[in-house]
Amino acid sequence: MNKTNPKSITVSCDNESLASLKEKQWIYEDALNKYDRLKARGLSLDMSRGKPSPTQLGFSQPMLSWTSANDFISIDGVDCRNYGGPSLGLSEARQIFSWILGTSTANIAVAGNSSLALMHDIIAFLMLKGSPNGNKPWVKSGQISFICPVPGYDRHFSILESFGITMLPVPIIENGPDMDTVEQLVFEDPSVKAMWCMPKYSNPTGITYSAETIHRLGSMKTAALDFHLFWDNAYAVHHLSDKSVFIPDILDVSATAGYENRAFVFASTSKITLSGSGLAALATSDQNLSWWQSHSDLRSIGPDKLNQLRHARFLKVKSSLDRLMESHRSVLAPKFNAVVSTFHRLLGSLNEVEWTEPLGGYFINLKVPTGCATRTVQLAADAGIVLTAAGASFPYRKDYKDCNIRIAPSFPTLSQINDAAEGIAVCVRLAIAESELE
Amino acid sequence: MNKTNPKSITVSCDNESLASLKEKQWIYEDALNKYDRLKARGLSLDMSRGKPSPTQLGFSQPMLSWTSANDFISIDGVDCRNYGGPSLGLSEARQIFSWILGTSTANIAVAGNSSLALMHDIIAFLMLKGSPNGNKPWVKSGQISFICPVPGYDRHFSILESFGITMLPVPIIENGPDMDTVEQLVFEDPSVKAMWCMPKYSNPTGITYSAETIHRLGSMKTAALDFHLFWDNAYAVHHLSDKSVFIPDILDVSATAGYENRAFVFASTSKITLSGSGLAALATSDQNLSWWQSHSDLRSIGPDKLNQLRHARFLKVKSSLDRLMESHRSVLAPKFNAVVSTFHRLLGSLNEVEWTEPLGGYFINLKVPTGCATRTVQLAADAGIVLTAAGASFPYRKDYKDCNIRIAPSFPTLSQINDAAEGIAVCVRLAIAESELE
Repeated sequence: MNKTNPKSITVSCDNESLASLKEKQWIYEDALNKYDRLKARGLSLDMSRGKPSPTQLGFSQPMLSWTSANDFISIDGVDCRNYGGPSLGLSEARQIFSWILGTSTANIAVAGNSSLALMHDIIAFLMLKGSPNGNKPWVKSGQISFICPVPGYDRHFSILESFGITMLPVPIIENGPDMDTVEQLVFEDPSVKAMWCMPKYSNPTGITYSAETIHRLGSMKTAALDFHLFWDNAYAVHHLSDKSVFIPDILDVSATAGYENRAFVFASTSKITLSGSGLAALATSDQNLSWWQSHSDLRSIGPDKLNQLRHARFLKVKSSLDRLMESHRSVLAPKFNAVVSTFHRLLGSLNEVEWTEPLGGYFINLKVPTGCATRTVQLAADAGIVLTAAGASFPYRKDYKDCNIRIAPSFPTLSQINDAAEGIAVCVRLAIAESELE
Repeated sequence: MNKTNPKSITVSCDNESLASLKEKQWIYEDALNKYDRLKARGLSLDMSRGKPSPTQLGFSQPMLSWTSANDFISIDGVDCRNYGGPSLGLSEARQIFSWILGTSTANIAVAGNSSLALMHDIIAFLMLKGSPNGNKPWVKSGQISFICPVPGYDRHFSILESFGITMLPVPIIENGPDMDTVEQLVFEDPSVKAMWCMPKYSNPTGITYSAETIHRLGSMKTAALDFHLFWDNAYAVHHLSDKSVFIPDILDVSATAGYENRAFVFASTSKITLSGSGLAALATSDQNLSWWQSHSDLRSIGPDKLNQLRHARFLKVKSSLDRLMESHRSVLAPKFNAVVSTFHRLLGSLNEVEWTEPLGGYFINLKVPTGCATRTVQLAADAGIVLTAAGASFPYRKDYKDCNIRIAPSFPTLSQINDAAEGIAVCVRLAIAESELE
């Protein structure tokens, strides 16, 4: 997964120090030289966000051509042009998310175009109105804390920051968040009310939680009776290898352990069909779903049923979903491979430089030596390669080691990705060379 | 507007009392007889919600047939299939609401499919994060109260109830809410943080606020520095007569008075294009808009831009909007006229029975003698005519005089409306006859 080949070794001898200094100088000049050549190319590439490429959006072309002129009645007989109908969403739309999440249709609500909005609103409901378990509103509960596995998704953290919720970072290790730390935090501290989880092909590491991690999350004892997992299964069917990764259903796992209302599960079709014009879904226990519906029904008269129907007409059967995801993989996998093989080639010899090689999702996490991430991102920007801001994957945008860079290879073309990966490698080498001269 | 013809007069004389009792008995039996005949017809009509009819939805048929197969780039060059683009909405979608509201495009955000959701979320933001004027979050400000003109829109009140916000009912009189009471409340009580307003063709009375009322609302002195008007201009272009009613722009009025951030203005195309698949908009001051955007951007990556583009392609120029509203009027006006003329014919002779004859909007408010509304609605339901629950137009669903009934004539066909209006009149007469016998 990562490279640990040794670099030149410095020994505490004056002559050798001098030699080492000269060597560092030489490395720096070589790196600077390569960086100047990179800059001269005048690239203009954006790898900052996990956006699908136009080619991928083209796979949903039939949706763009669909007309509802004579096709606006749902399977349950609802006129999708008008108010009314089921506030949990059309049956056929809930079916799509049942395929995606492997959860019973009865436990799924489809609402809006943004799973992030569903997460945001559930936190707002918990703050203002109290939990499905009947506990009082969080605004009346003193300090509220969330466990935040890091590196993680910047928008998760921004929501908490804006609500004044304390973020407790816990490192992501090989099989997911460091569970010893998680279990201790939730057991000891009743202010720990929730935890963000991206269980599969996580943003930005690409890590998938192991079955053991998921079982521990679903069954751990928590001091807070209204503790919830915010289970953002954003990349449930977004495989990059031909070996689809399977994870246990957290709703089953936590129900079996006696914590039926523990998890709110989220998904969307933003990276399946159309980004921004997709569908978002919540899957959770019966009681949680009723709780959500009771609050959500006050907020709006209902979802855009025509967009739900549009999706249902496009994704008629599970195999159409599978084929679509296979098309996405055919475009995305070569881009990820290009980044990874370029990093192997150009960064493989560097100490303290490593990267993830995910089996799915939209991101690669590149780790550089302590203190080099911000400088690398800056150098890349100056050379026309926009990366996600260093630190973005951490609460308060603060990566204390300044060593993580999120790479989003989905949007540019394959040829641009090759340029960008090489460019990033050049910037990493220069940032390290600069830091070693200091 | 209302009927005040005198009924039979009872005099305090035994013989005459007996005669009067007999007369009441006779009136009751006649009413019961007519009601039994109504019931025997086995009607099944729903006049409970302001839903457009299928004929009206058909006016937006071109939207249902629109394909974005080769048409997904906005005027600003945004690929509407993907994430990104302006988070205040597409320029062309904001333009539509500029026509509807008469407000500058720069002060308009288009987001989601539900203006109610925009209202809900702004209240949630104010509660959790504080106001655009920099005041502290309402959850930290002790008791919060809203002025609620009554009768009003049930969903406005449900939101407040769920947030635990105190509702202060103020009667709607001829020119809008009773402004003497309003001015006194906001001047004296700093817990009064906001007021619901439906300034034009109000739900359910159909009343339009006079220019003087609007000027008083925009310029009144309030004890709370973070006082806001929630200005739900839901029926801005929904005329029923050929004389379109004009109201002053509250944003202008309040800015001129030195209260630039006072009003949040809301509108949607739910009753212009497609209900549930329409667009919703917020119009407000620069500072309010930035405040809203700063919170809303954390909630979601952005609106459904394809649906905004779909609207822009359909409502290309202001005259297409005008023509569309004219089509709606051609269907709606005869239904309203049918209700009104039936009420004149069958209820015109009754004391304490009156109804509004709105120049726009979706509702007629029928006033019956104190204590007769619930019974009338119940009788109607038993005869197959579903009306909005009595009391729904009041905070906590409590119409203390039990005298208001909201009539929604939009959804049924004209022939059904005739049946329904006659049926309602029969129920009113029986409810009154019953109460007079007690």
